[in-house]
Amino acid sequence: MGAFLEAVGSLRPVDNRLLEAARQWHLKLTKPAGSLGVLEEIGARMCAMAARVPPPLAEPAAVAVFAADHGVLSQGVSPWPAEVTAQMVANFLGGGAAINVIAKAAGADLTVVDIGIASDPGRGENLVSKKVRRGTADITQGDAMTPDEAMAALDAGAEVAAELLARGARCLVCGDMGIGNTTPSAALVAAFSGQQPEAVTGRGTGIDDDMWAVKVEAVRRAVARHGWQGPSGAEAAAADPLAVLAAVGGLEHAGIAGFAMAGAAGGVPVLLDGLISSSAALVAAAVAPAVTGYLLAGHRSVEPGASIALSMLGLDPILDLGMRLGEGSGACLALPVVQVAARIMSEMATFDSAGIKG
Amino acid sequence: MGAFLEAVGSLRPVDNRLLEAARQWHLKLTKPAGSLGVLEEIGARMCAMAARVPPPLAEPAAVAVFAADHGVLSQGVSPWPAEVTAQMVANFLGGGAAINVIAKAAGADLTVVDIGIASDPGRGENLVSKKVRRGTADITQGDAMTPDEAMAALDAGAEVAAELLARGARCLVCGDMGIGNTTPSAALVAAFSGQQPEAVTGRGTGIDDDMWAVKVEAVRRAVARHGWQGPSGAEAAAADPLAVLAAVGGLEHAGIAGFAMAGAAGGVPVLLDGLISSSAALVAAAVAPAVTGYLLAGHRSVEPGASIALSMLGLDPILDLGMRLGEGSGACLALPVVQVAARIMSEMATFDSAGIKG
Repeated sequence: MGAFLEAVGSLRPVDNRLLEAARQWHLKLTKPAGSLGVLEEIGARMCAMAARVPPPLAEPAAVAVFAADHGVLSQGVSPWPAEVTAQMVANFLGGGAAINVIAKAAGADLTVVDIGIASDPGRGENLVSKKVRRGTADITQGDAMTPDEAMAALDAGAEVAAELLARGARCLVCGDMGIGNTTPSAALVAAFSGQQPEAVTGRGTGIDDDMWAVKVEAVRRAVARHGWQGPSGAEAAAADPLAVLAAVGGLEHAGIAGFAMAGAAGGVPVLLDGLISSSAALVAAAVAPAVTGYLLAGHRSVEPGASIALSMLGLDPILDLGMRLGEGSGACLALPVVQVAARIMSEMATFDSAGIKG
Repeated sequence: MGAFLEAVGSLRPVDNRLLEAARQWHLKLTKPAGSLGVLEEIGARMCAMAARVPPPLAEPAAVAVFAADHGVLSQGVSPWPAEVTAQMVANFLGGGAAINVIAKAAGADLTVVDIGIASDPGRGENLVSKKVRRGTADITQGDAMTPDEAMAALDAGAEVAAELLARGARCLVCGDMGIGNTTPSAALVAAFSGQQPEAVTGRGTGIDDDMWAVKVEAVRRAVARHGWQGPSGAEAAAADPLAVLAAVGGLEHAGIAGFAMAGAAGGVPVLLDGLISSSAALVAAAVAPAVTGYLLAGHRSVEPGASIALSMLGLDPILDLGMRLGEGSGACLALPVVQVAARIMSEMATFDSAGIKG
């Protein structure tokens, strides 16, 4: 059995009885009841994940950026050429991308995973090669990848998570890079939500109306090839999520789904970024709904599909800053909030210890 | 001339021509145009503050928590006794409060300023004594403080900012502690906005309907004593902001107004927290509107008066996490976002330097 199914097998649901215990714990801390709002909710969820009050610190954290290419790019869904995927990976390795700056500021370790770049990226200390194939096939014409390839990419993502956990990570952050990858993301959201392609498809890197229409059509054709459109299609999709992933997803989606599953199986919080990781999380959640107990939504991307996916996952985003970059940038920007939520529960004085009559 | 009026005199408006230069700079960085959303807007505003592209780093940052007591507490506007102000200051000095945890996590220096606590707080390395008087008078019965006391507290706040800047701080974070201080805050917002007491008065630490009605009535009486109610009252208030501060404000409001003014005069970003600091900023902005160019709103407090004040200041909050603690907690939680906004502009590679054709 591969790392992904192993993670599915060892995943235990979060213990929601701990939510009340966390609330009681918060009431003892030197602040008015409930005055830290969402910070208290996040802390309580972390207690449920770890089955411990206060929760363990979410430190150190590790960001993994899964990079891959997409055959659907040939349909004209992005103004950027596929080569930019590898160029941006080189940029990650050189430390010049947004995620480098944000991860460094947050004190998080950054790993870049080649899970399916079409070309060969350069070398770098923090590059992990888990290439399953050189980009996906065009999802409007056929399946993105075979079921075996999808499972290999799920395993690869789960292996990356297991390695980071073994190296001490106590919080995992999902990132992605792949020119064209908002198209398969929208297709995944369309298939699992049953919503119309127009409703789930966004502007990606900032495309114009004409290109957006092409992109919507690509999403429509990809989903329609399998009859996954509409509410009845969504039922069929939910019943066979790995088929959906292989048909209309991307290799980085598979990697992130595996990564999130193994992080959850390891009992640590997993921070989702925007559209790519939240659409990948739909795959993971369809396989094992308990995974959602370990997920936190770093931010609300401007991509409409991201909000639909988060709503399906039952997650409220921490930040809402109009971001749409990917790379894990929004998730990593929210990381300090998550880490503070845990520290508050461990480090604050109680009314008793501080001698304050609340 | 005291430190406050000196700061007012040396304040220069931010240079908004730099906003376009910042936009051009952002376009060169290795990311789709505009994809970092609000992070790019914050970075551009920091350029306008410093008159430099890229902006200087907002590091190190310093948090100042201004603590004082309030005579209006005798009206029954809070369930907490005044003694808790000093007890919480002792908690700050002992490192056990929420702001200690959040400031430490953000790598920010914490200074606690006794600007008007009724009793004598303990000692501590990071306690600065700038006590102007032992709490304010009851604002429903008379003025909170004399005009001289208000100016002394404004000066004290400005001096604290100047000292922190001299010690190297490149970003200032506003914090407050004072049992009962949401009542004078609401009175300040009512006076400057012309809105009804019911609209600007919130639940503070979490009061019930009966106590809220008492609080609304206290705000109404405080503002009505001077004829500052309604739109015409707001015009009168704007014309004499220091009289408003002395009549219905608090010593920590004066301290924060002075602190913000001197930070702005020093050319650094000043992060507002919730209701107390944003209502104090209304005083500063009425004295010198240019100060708002240096203000950033850390978060949207659940207090209704905070949103009204931010809207008057033209500020959009960075975080919206349902917080209402004060102490500078929401501002300090947003600090990493502000610091990343500056780092992005300094540390990211350009398309040219990374060899990427955008």
